[in-house]
Amino acid sequence: MAGGYLSASTGKPVRAVLFDVFGTVVDWRSGIAAAVREFASAHSLDADPEAFADQWRGQYVPSMRRVRAGNRPFASLDVLHRENLEEVLAASGLDPARFRAQELDRLTRAWHFLPPWPDSVTGIAQIKKDYIVGPLSNGNTELLLDMARAGGLPWDLILGSDVTRAYKPDPVAYQKPAEFLGLDPAEIMLAAAHNGDLAGARAAGLATAFIARPDEGGPGQAANLAPAADWDLVATSLTDLARQLH
Amino acid sequence: MAGGYLSASTGKPVRAVLFDVFGTVVDWRSGIAAAVREFASAHSLDADPEAFADQWRGQYVPSMRRVRAGNRPFASLDVLHRENLEEVLAASGLDPARFRAQELDRLTRAWHFLPPWPDSVTGIAQIKKDYIVGPLSNGNTELLLDMARAGGLPWDLILGSDVTRAYKPDPVAYQKPAEFLGLDPAEIMLAAAHNGDLAGARAAGLATAFIARPDEGGPGQAANLAPAADWDLVATSLTDLARQLH
Repeated sequence: MAGGYLSASTGKPVRAVLFDVFGTVVDWRSGIAAAVREFASAHSLDADPEAFADQWRGQYVPSMRRVRAGNRPFASLDVLHRENLEEVLAASGLDPARFRAQELDRLTRAWHFLPPWPDSVTGIAQIKKDYIVGPLSNGNTELLLDMARAGGLPWDLILGSDVTRAYKPDPVAYQKPAEFLGLDPAEIMLAAAHNGDLAGARAAGLATAFIARPDEGGPGQAANLAPAADWDLVATSLTDLARQLH
Repeated sequence: MAGGYLSASTGKPVRAVLFDVFGTVVDWRSGIAAAVREFASAHSLDADPEAFADQWRGQYVPSMRRVRAGNRPFASLDVLHRENLEEVLAASGLDPARFRAQELDRLTRAWHFLPPWPDSVTGIAQIKKDYIVGPLSNGNTELLLDMARAGGLPWDLILGSDVTRAYKPDPVAYQKPAEFLGLDPAEIMLAAAHNGDLAGARAAGLATAFIARPDEGGPGQAANLAPAADWDLVATSLTDLARQLH
């Protein structure tokens, strides 16, 4: 049987460590800014790639909230990212209709190919020796699969939000993976760089690990610089988390 | 973009190779017979382990057929294997009630830890270089995950029958993985040792590869010794399949 770390908050040994992805495992801001820079250059646009990435990411939570609130049927994150791109273009004074649909599709696919943080592949591989590892992300399966193959993320399995058909912090998003793994939610630890995500995981019965990612939001990052609660573990990287889990 | 083999039957390049598991990737008969031998020895039973394995496997298709026919709600393969064990014990003149439930649960879990054929891990790893790889099995996710970790099967992702909630040869079982992968069914190849499975895959629009596994059924194997139709590829092992796909 995999695992073994005994969670003080759940009282159960952890068998699987599942990871938030955007910000925790991969550096979305650098990845998206690079793709935006290329797009802007191809179209001779005067855009600040990092600011554009921040604005695009800024639409992420509101767009999922509309799904969670039942204001629209479930739509995959690929669909939401594509819609949000048009909103951000329009907000930047750029009519989306001036670009070909395929060009916007291609830019949206940059979310599939974000670079892992330097410690991610090694840390996940170390944790995999003793624990089941996988993403617990709002990304859809295809996105997470492309990212894993491109970045060498050695997941045991990938169950995207299109499998659970729920977006975090909906409790279903945290609990449904436990069903597929044949585990109690308390036997799963969420590793995440965001206190709100960890609060959702704890409310759903999971163990929790905070990973500090002070560069996620760029120089102006104000949130999630430190743990906001007594999470089971607090780590500076995924290799540090691996050390603490052994 | 992964892949590249051009399927003559679908007219599309293959991007993902998904594998039948029981018989194609793992040797269920030896694995189950070993577990039955241990169980029989512990309980001083006079049982033929291979014959018992055959009888247990013999209940596999009929038990899934009852789900497919809508005669009962979806039940995972773990549940079906456990029920089928009681039937086979009873048919062997052994009252299931004479054993503790946990002992029967433990014997049923042998289906999670079946040994890969000698060429499976190498062949899948070779195919993974250019194609998305995963199981397309009637096994549930937990079973396939335990098997992958124990046997070192390097899947990109695992979507069990509890994710698709369909059992082969139901077309949904073949088509639903394509949705999660963002692929056309024609961009997926099923690799299987069973002509009936391949017929189901072809009817659902997939490309097909027959893998000869003449030892799957033991010395008396009569079925599936040769391809029964013009499948896209015919291979003697998964390493042979890897060679043909490159």
